[in-house]
Amino acid sequence: MVKKILKFGGTSVGTIERIKHVANIIRKEHVSGNQIIAVVSAMSGKTNELIELSKEISEKFEKRELDVLLSTGEQVTSALLCGALIKLKIKARSWLNWQIPILTEGEHSNSRIVNMNVSKINEFIKDGIAIVPGFQGISKNGDVTTIGRGGSDATAVAIAKLFDADACEIYTDVDGVFSSDPNNVPVAKKIDKISYEEMLELSSLGAKVMQSSAVQTAMIYDIPIEVRSTFTDRKGTRIFDQQNIDYTKSVTGVAYSKDDAKITIIGVEDKPGVAANIFEPLNEAQINVDMVIQNISSDQRTTDITFTVKRNDLSKTTEILKKNKKVKFNKITNNDKVAKVSIVGAGMVSTPGVTFKMFKGLAEEKINILAISTSEIKLSVIIDEPNTLKAVKKLHTIFNLD
Amino acid sequence: MVKKILKFGGTSVGTIERIKHVANIIRKEHVSGNQIIAVVSAMSGKTNELIELSKEISEKFEKRELDVLLSTGEQVTSALLCGALIKLKIKARSWLNWQIPILTEGEHSNSRIVNMNVSKINEFIKDGIAIVPGFQGISKNGDVTTIGRGGSDATAVAIAKLFDADACEIYTDVDGVFSSDPNNVPVAKKIDKISYEEMLELSSLGAKVMQSSAVQTAMIYDIPIEVRSTFTDRKGTRIFDQQNIDYTKSVTGVAYSKDDAKITIIGVEDKPGVAANIFEPLNEAQINVDMVIQNISSDQRTTDITFTVKRNDLSKTTEILKKNKKVKFNKITNNDKVAKVSIVGAGMVSTPGVTFKMFKGLAEEKINILAISTSEIKLSVIIDEPNTLKAVKKLHTIFNLD
Repeated sequence: MVKKILKFGGTSVGTIERIKHVANIIRKEHVSGNQIIAVVSAMSGKTNELIELSKEISEKFEKRELDVLLSTGEQVTSALLCGALIKLKIKARSWLNWQIPILTEGEHSNSRIVNMNVSKINEFIKDGIAIVPGFQGISKNGDVTTIGRGGSDATAVAIAKLFDADACEIYTDVDGVFSSDPNNVPVAKKIDKISYEEMLELSSLGAKVMQSSAVQTAMIYDIPIEVRSTFTDRKGTRIFDQQNIDYTKSVTGVAYSKDDAKITIIGVEDKPGVAANIFEPLNEAQINVDMVIQNISSDQRTTDITFTVKRNDLSKTTEILKKNKKVKFNKITNNDKVAKVSIVGAGMVSTPGVTFKMFKGLAEEKINILAISTSEIKLSVIIDEPNTLKAVKKLHTIFNLD
Repeated sequence: MVKKILKFGGTSVGTIERIKHVANIIRKEHVSGNQIIAVVSAMSGKTNELIELSKEISEKFEKRELDVLLSTGEQVTSALLCGALIKLKIKARSWLNWQIPILTEGEHSNSRIVNMNVSKINEFIKDGIAIVPGFQGISKNGDVTTIGRGGSDATAVAIAKLFDADACEIYTDVDGVFSSDPNNVPVAKKIDKISYEEMLELSSLGAKVMQSSAVQTAMIYDIPIEVRSTFTDRKGTRIFDQQNIDYTKSVTGVAYSKDDAKITIIGVEDKPGVAANIFEPLNEAQINVDMVIQNISSDQRTTDITFTVKRNDLSKTTEILKKNKKVKFNKITNNDKVAKVSIVGAGMVSTPGVTFKMFKGLAEEKINILAISTSEIKLSVIIDEPNTLKAVKKLHTIFNLD
């Protein structure tokens, strides 16, 4: 008897026909003897629809009530999927955030799952299917909380951990994790297996298959995950511990994010605490700072700091920087049409020349590099946005990902 | 300090603009020093939308999960209204069925509210607005339950009772209770005050302003209600105890229901238990039987039984009757295009000639009466459906309701 957590994303449950199809997937797993807990997202588009309603009332809609509002999306899917299973003569019931309960900590709309009661559901899944709405829980005060966009993945992984599940399968609208976005990069290929670390870099870089915090939790607790398609029977991508992966390739995938803007603060006083003084007010304004690069300046007493933010946040960011009296600098420059392109691979560290090959490839395409940042398993460059796809395709070719 | 329950129906909260308008109504009540609990329906159309989704999965969608599904509608409105109040700088929070909790008894989709915890909300409304989703509660097992269509009225009345409120106001899309449906009967007039009993007859007869079981609860616990418009400042209709009403008119209103069908079973064996034998299998099939009339037959050993059902149920009803081996009869006739027209008034019993005046009026319009049924405060006739509006207008004129 194998205990499986199956998570179905928004497009997988986007219509009634698809919900019926998902019910059939679950039925197959059930009749082959597995114990199933299904975690569901809101039907695709529903969460955005609810957010739009809230924005028509207030751009700063109160967060406690926003969580009450948004949590209805997954509740609807849970009930519908449950009804579809019962229609197939399978014992099933939905378990809402407060019925389990799923306990969370942290602030509204960005909570973390810390515990849940497993006994009742463990009893139920001996002969029935438990359906759990993803993305939500309750606080210790008994308020509804949500765990951030895409949080249904995090729910699935947390359930896999707390229920000591044998497998956690993330059903989505693509065949698995690809070396790059297959919609825009036709040469992108499905990856059969990938380490948590690589997946983490890929997902945080815009490969939208799985939410990063969920991958992180899976990594910490060593929960093997399979990402696979709801709409085909093909094998998906298995995500597991790095040690079990045989690295024949130095680079696993190429990720990119658009809508970025680059800001450089030139001639910042070079003394301890200056970076903290720059980023503290940005953090308070909830501006998400991505890449940060500090260059050594020519005069030794000042330095230049470059970082990227989402394009939407650019004007707010420069405004905050100019008002910031704690930081002295010469001037601020910015470029609002940049993209970040990254190569990711756990094998990079042991393969000499990866960095050089990347830079040479981009040079061959006459793509200018505006900034560079590296980590153990990732190498990111900022380039002008119009060059994005050209760069991604070239990197695919160079690193034999086609 | 006055404690008020304000209930807002589906059209009153049907758009974001209307929700903002409702927030302003509540704000006014709040700043004039009243303690407010607001009960809200789902945005108009939402419940039907969810029911449609469930039907696409199964016409017999499992009821426990249907309640999980439908309860999201009022939850959405609660959060949105709460956000709108907070935007107006008023302290407010939503209280979900399980957070209060609202305890119910009875089967899914048709439960009754039996109790709720009042202490936390009583504390909260000293300086804030409590928003409660109508139409729902939880069972003692901790399942989500709903209390039948239109059940938000019942929630409002139950809250008025359990919180010992001073007033219960039902905000809707009409100015109050009318002597007949003002959309179809232009001469219909708003009623300033009406007794619970009359209201009960009017609401069960298709005057959709307020749900009958809610009126019944209000009557039992003597909770005065005002039905009024969300969209005007005009006074509404006050519903209260009969003893406090001065009857200058014998007839208060004229109600009618279309979509009825009439069935007559001719030559039924006239012995004890025969009516029970006829209606038991109809009840099991959940067919709602409305008017029942038993005529004395000419031969003394048999009788004729006439009753009405909704037109949709006609073929199912005759099928069940024909299969019923416990009941012997000569034949079944039916008429699937009839309507029920009723005059209602607590003053009828003390006013001679009301019955005669009604029959005479209908005769003047050459409207044939197919069946008659009377109670203390109501007189109903079945007529051919095409005559409905002609009959209603005539009765308005006769009883000076114009």
